[in-house]
Formats: sequence, C-alpha cells, structure tokens
Amino acid sequence: MTDQHIASAFDRDLEGIQAKIMKMGGLVEAAILDAAQSLETRDEELAEKVRVGDKAIDELEEMINEDAARLIALRAPTAGDLRLVLTVMKISANLERIGDYAKNMAKRTSILANMSPINGSQAALRRMAREVNEMLKDALDSYIQRDVTKAQDVIHRDADVDQMYNALFREFLTFMMEDPRNITACMHLHFMAKNTERMGDHVTSIAEQVIYLVTGDTPEEDRTKQDKTSTDTSLSPQAS
Amino acid sequence: MTDQHIASAFDRDLEGIQAKIMKMGGLVEAAILDAAQSLETRDEELAEKVRVGDKAIDELEEMINEDAARLIALRAPTAGDLRLVLTVMKISANLERIGDYAKNMAKRTSILANMSPINGSQAALRRMAREVNEMLKDALDSYIQRDVTKAQDVIHRDADVDQMYNALFREFLTFMMEDPRNITACMHLHFMAKNTERMGDHVTSIAEQVIYLVTGDTPEEDRTKQDKTSTDTSLSPQAS
Repeated sequence: MTDQHIASAFDRDLEGIQAKIMKMGGLVEAAILDAAQSLETRDEELAEKVRVGDKAIDELEEMINEDAARLIALRAPTAGDLRLVLTVMKISANLERIGDYAKNMAKRTSILANMSPINGSQAALRRMAREVNEMLKDALDSYIQRDVTKAQDVIHRDADVDQMYNALFREFLTFMMEDPRNITACMHLHFMAKNTERMGDHVTSIAEQVIYLVTGDTPEEDRTKQDKTSTDTSLSPQAS
Repeated sequence: MTDQHIASAFDRDLEGIQAKIMKMGGLVEAAILDAAQSLETRDEELAEKVRVGDKAIDELEEMINEDAARLIALRAPTAGDLRLVLTVMKISANLERIGDYAKNMAKRTSILANMSPINGSQAALRRMAREVNEMLKDALDSYIQRDVTKAQDVIHRDADVDQMYNALFREFLTFMMEDPRNITACMHLHFMAKNTERMGDHVTSIAEQVIYLVTGDTPEEDRTKQDKTSTDTSLSPQAS
C-alpha cells in the first residue's frame, strides 16, 4: 500500500514537471519561428518579443530543475524513474539553449533591418528555422509517446538542416566576394544560419535522450559531421 | 552508526566522481591550448590530437553521469548532497561543451593551414584561448575550494574575453573589406573566435554553479550582453 502511494505521488509530481516541459517547448517553438520571421519581414517589434520572451523560458528551466531535485530528494525514485527525471532535466537544458539561440537571432534583426536584404537569404533562413521547429515538435511528441521511430526520424532530418546550412555558407561567401558592401550583413546572417544549425543539434540531442530513455542505448553519432564547412576544402577558393 | 556509514559511502562515491571531473578538466584545459596553438603554428598533427582526444572527454562525461545517477539511486542523498551531485553533473556538461568547441576549432586548422595567415589574428586568438584556459583552471579550483570570491573573479574576467572577441570581430570585418581574398580565412577565424568566446561563457557557467552551490544564490547575469556585435550598430558601416 505505502509503495503504491509513493509510486503515484512520484507520477503526479512527474506529470507536473512534464507539463512545464511542454509549456517550455511551446514557447521555444514559437521563439524559433518568430525570430526567423522578424528577420524576413524586418519586424523589430516581433524581434523584441522574442528577446523579452526568453526570460520566461529561462524561468521555466529553473523551475523544472528545482522540481526535479525536490522530486528526487522526496520520492527517492528507483533506477528507471531516476533515469526519467534526469532525462527531463536534460531535455529542459536543451530547450533553454535553443531559446538562447533564438534570442540571439532576434538581437541581430534590428541591425539587419537597416541593411540591404541579401538576395533570398532571409527566406532560406526561415525555411531552415521552420524545419527545426517541426523537428522540435516531433522530438517532444516522441518523448510523450515514447516513440523511438519518431525520435530516429528527427535525428535523420537533422542532416537536411545541416545541408541547408552548408548551402547558405557557400552563398554568403559568394555574396561577400561579389560585393564587399555585403560583408557585414553576411557576417550577421551567417551567424544566424549557424545558430539555427545548432538549434537542430540540440533538437537531435533531445531525440537521442528519448531513445536512451526507452531503449537504454545511446545512438552512435557525430552530431557535427554534417557541417562540412569545417573540413571541406572546396569551400576555400583561395587555398590553392 | 548506520547513518554515518551511509554518509561516508556517499563521500567516497562523490570523491570518485570529482576525481573524474578533475581529469576531464585537465583534458579540456589542454584541448583549449592545443587547438589555439595548432592554429598559430599550423601544426596539423596537434590539431588531429585535439580532434581524437575529444572522445576521451565525452566518455568521461558519460561515466560521470552514470556514476552520479547510481550515487543518487543508491545513497538517496539529502537535499544539500543532492544539490552537490546535480552541480557536478552540470559542471561536466559544461566541460563537455567546451571540449566540443575546442574540437571544432581544431577541425578548421587544416583548412587555415593552406591559406595566407591573417595579420596577427592567430596570435590574438591564442591569447584569448589562454585567458579562457586560465579562467577554467580557476573555476575548477573555486569548485574544489568552495571559493566564492575566486568564482566571482572568473565571472568578471569573462568580460575581457568578450572584449577580445569584439576587437577581433571588427578586425575581421576590416580585413575582409580591404581584400576579398581574405574572406574565407576570416570567416573561419571568426568562427574560432566566437567559439572561444562561447567557451568563456561555459566557464562562467561553471563559476556560477559554484556560487549557487555555496551560497544557494544564482548570480544575476546576462551572459551574452558583452558580445556587442549583435547590437552595436557602429559595426555596421553600410547601415547609413
């Protein structure tokens, strides 16, 4: 009887934490899309909303950490339940990082709003952000449903995001070489592209956590391998 | 008697985890310096060592996480001890990220080895890396000694790293505008500078963890505020 009582108290506490994770996920999903949109439509008000909104995301992470620590201390969960709580903490840490990247993107909107737009890059960035947003939705779904297949699918899709980033990197190099007046804008845009690519890495990390939670295995991976700009010498035209 | 027995078992287990943290810290400190040196001396062998060495860092983080989870499950620590274990896990997560950034820097060494060096930038980057390395040493010392003053000092010094980054960012913009043949090299160097600046943020985060552990307070901060390149419009010459 006592055991069962303890078990259901654990479940109830965990549900409270998971509700906060989902709330946090919703805020982060919106921040990704809003940051990219504020860039494309030069909407400084929307960018400001993303920047200010990051506080709520950070506060949720703090609360989740405190709740999780209290849960462990109070309920002394078994090994399996403990793993679950630790997973939740890692997911919230990843969400917090993604929120930071979105905030960082939004900070650059006001600078870029004052520069000539770079031929199609803003739209490409937004497509990238939309893909990351979809991946995040699916990663959080895969957590709730304990769906390993869905989590694996998210991990595979990260390669598309990496490819979009590689294409943009090449484009920026070209634009800068064509016209030095593009350099500053391209430097900022490149930052945003790299940040979006990193968001994808954090979403991948969430999906990996789900797989580990369900199967006990950490998927073999080298998350950075698809960013070819650090190794592909064909991107270095003046190397020869 | 039993209580005392449990307490000392906890201490013994924790000591084992802390030894791994210190080992991990040593590897990460070396990776930071080696990555920057491999760039300056165009030493591809050293860069390869950093890239390969990151595996050992990742494995240590895995082990620390497993040990910590086992410790919590087995010893059911009190609130204070639990906070300590969670802090250790966060420190190891930060160390792992810093190691990743060092690996990422080292990946770019081979590309940059084939390009003309950019006037003094490599040396400036190395100075930045050395400062981050010193900060990391002190942050880990502050953890071992539970020294809040030392931890606060580390946090303050991060502003210097941010300033070094801002100066480099301006330099890279100038070099690229002066001569488009500098663009590719500067893009890679800028990446490395930004990665080093981010390492500083993670060291700061470790110092903040120490302060939280000792005092229970999270220092009020906006870690990104010193990167002025995302807000300072004076960096946008063609804005007008």
